[in-house]
Amino acid sequence: MTAKYPPALLHLIEFLKRLPGVGTKTAERYAFQLLSWPKEHLELLGEAARTLKERVHPCPECHCLMEKEACTFCDPSKRELQFLCIISSAKDVYAIEETHMYRGAYHVLGGLLSPLDGRTPDHLDLHLLQERIQKLQVKEVIIALDSTIEGDATSLYLKERLASLGIRVSRLAFGLPMGSPLDYVDGGTLSRALVGRQNF
Amino acid sequence: MTAKYPPALLHLIEFLKRLPGVGTKTAERYAFQLLSWPKEHLELLGEAARTLKERVHPCPECHCLMEKEACTFCDPSKRELQFLCIISSAKDVYAIEETHMYRGAYHVLGGLLSPLDGRTPDHLDLHLLQERIQKLQVKEVIIALDSTIEGDATSLYLKERLASLGIRVSRLAFGLPMGSPLDYVDGGTLSRALVGRQNF
Repeated sequence: MTAKYPPALLHLIEFLKRLPGVGTKTAERYAFQLLSWPKEHLELLGEAARTLKERVHPCPECHCLMEKEACTFCDPSKRELQFLCIISSAKDVYAIEETHMYRGAYHVLGGLLSPLDGRTPDHLDLHLLQERIQKLQVKEVIIALDSTIEGDATSLYLKERLASLGIRVSRLAFGLPMGSPLDYVDGGTLSRALVGRQNF
Repeated sequence: MTAKYPPALLHLIEFLKRLPGVGTKTAERYAFQLLSWPKEHLELLGEAARTLKERVHPCPECHCLMEKEACTFCDPSKRELQFLCIISSAKDVYAIEETHMYRGAYHVLGGLLSPLDGRTPDHLDLHLLQERIQKLQVKEVIIALDSTIEGDATSLYLKERLASLGIRVSRLAFGLPMGSPLDYVDGGTLSRALVGRQNF
């Protein structure tokens, strides 16, 4: 005798539940909110979702996201291609770009090493990376991976693999995040900040 | 020099930000997750969003949600229409149906009184409610509104307006939620539980 939601609503809820961190309750809340939207907005949203992959795709060179025109991150007139920043996913580009501190090229690894999840070095396609380093005559590779166990492992692996190329390989600094009281910083971060201390 | 997301992605993020409780960061996370979905799933989601309002609409009688066929909550062969449960939004139906304790009809008010937000009694359309009470020969009206200030105010207002009809008007009980240790219950709830104590 339990009333089910109307099938079309249920169908939408099932899709919304696949979003990260969205459970049944949240998906229901989203679906009911969508019901209150004007019809035109729902049509625009539907169209945006439907055509997303047709319009946005990874650059065949660097795997950053691009639309129809050429990849802006691979354009030699705009970027200093002798610097190559290695990131794990295309999303990370935008965080780095926001700093306005980097004008080089990118290389999206597409994941991190994680033997427990079955992600071994074979998944990283380092062949493509080495090819690009040679083609672009890269002087410095900047490793910008997560400061997690997987990020550390992948960074170390990259360092070893790139050592023979005779180019500079650097990694983002570790230390205190800005605006943080010292006693709120965890021990691991504080240790890395001590080890990496700079002359002042 | 800041890199913007590709326009199609940005467009989708703008729509996702309109969902309740979704800010820029969450919308970006959803959009990147959607990018990783197979194309067919995106098409199905797009279709589900686009056609939602065509397929799901409020019943003209009780304002519960229905699809093309007749409203199941207004069907006299399935429901005891002499009981009428007043709820503030169509979503509340499903919580009550899940209890399996109610087989009467519903009436969706569409909101609660909230003078500060400009929601006065004119917004509630009590005329329609009174019409239905007469047409269905309702014996009991069960007020199932939120236990908030707005819910209390609306319940009191309904009680006064329905007093002259000579039918039973009840409201959901207040008291301890199930499974809660007494010292975790707030003072307001405990007060209501004391006032409403039952012979045992």
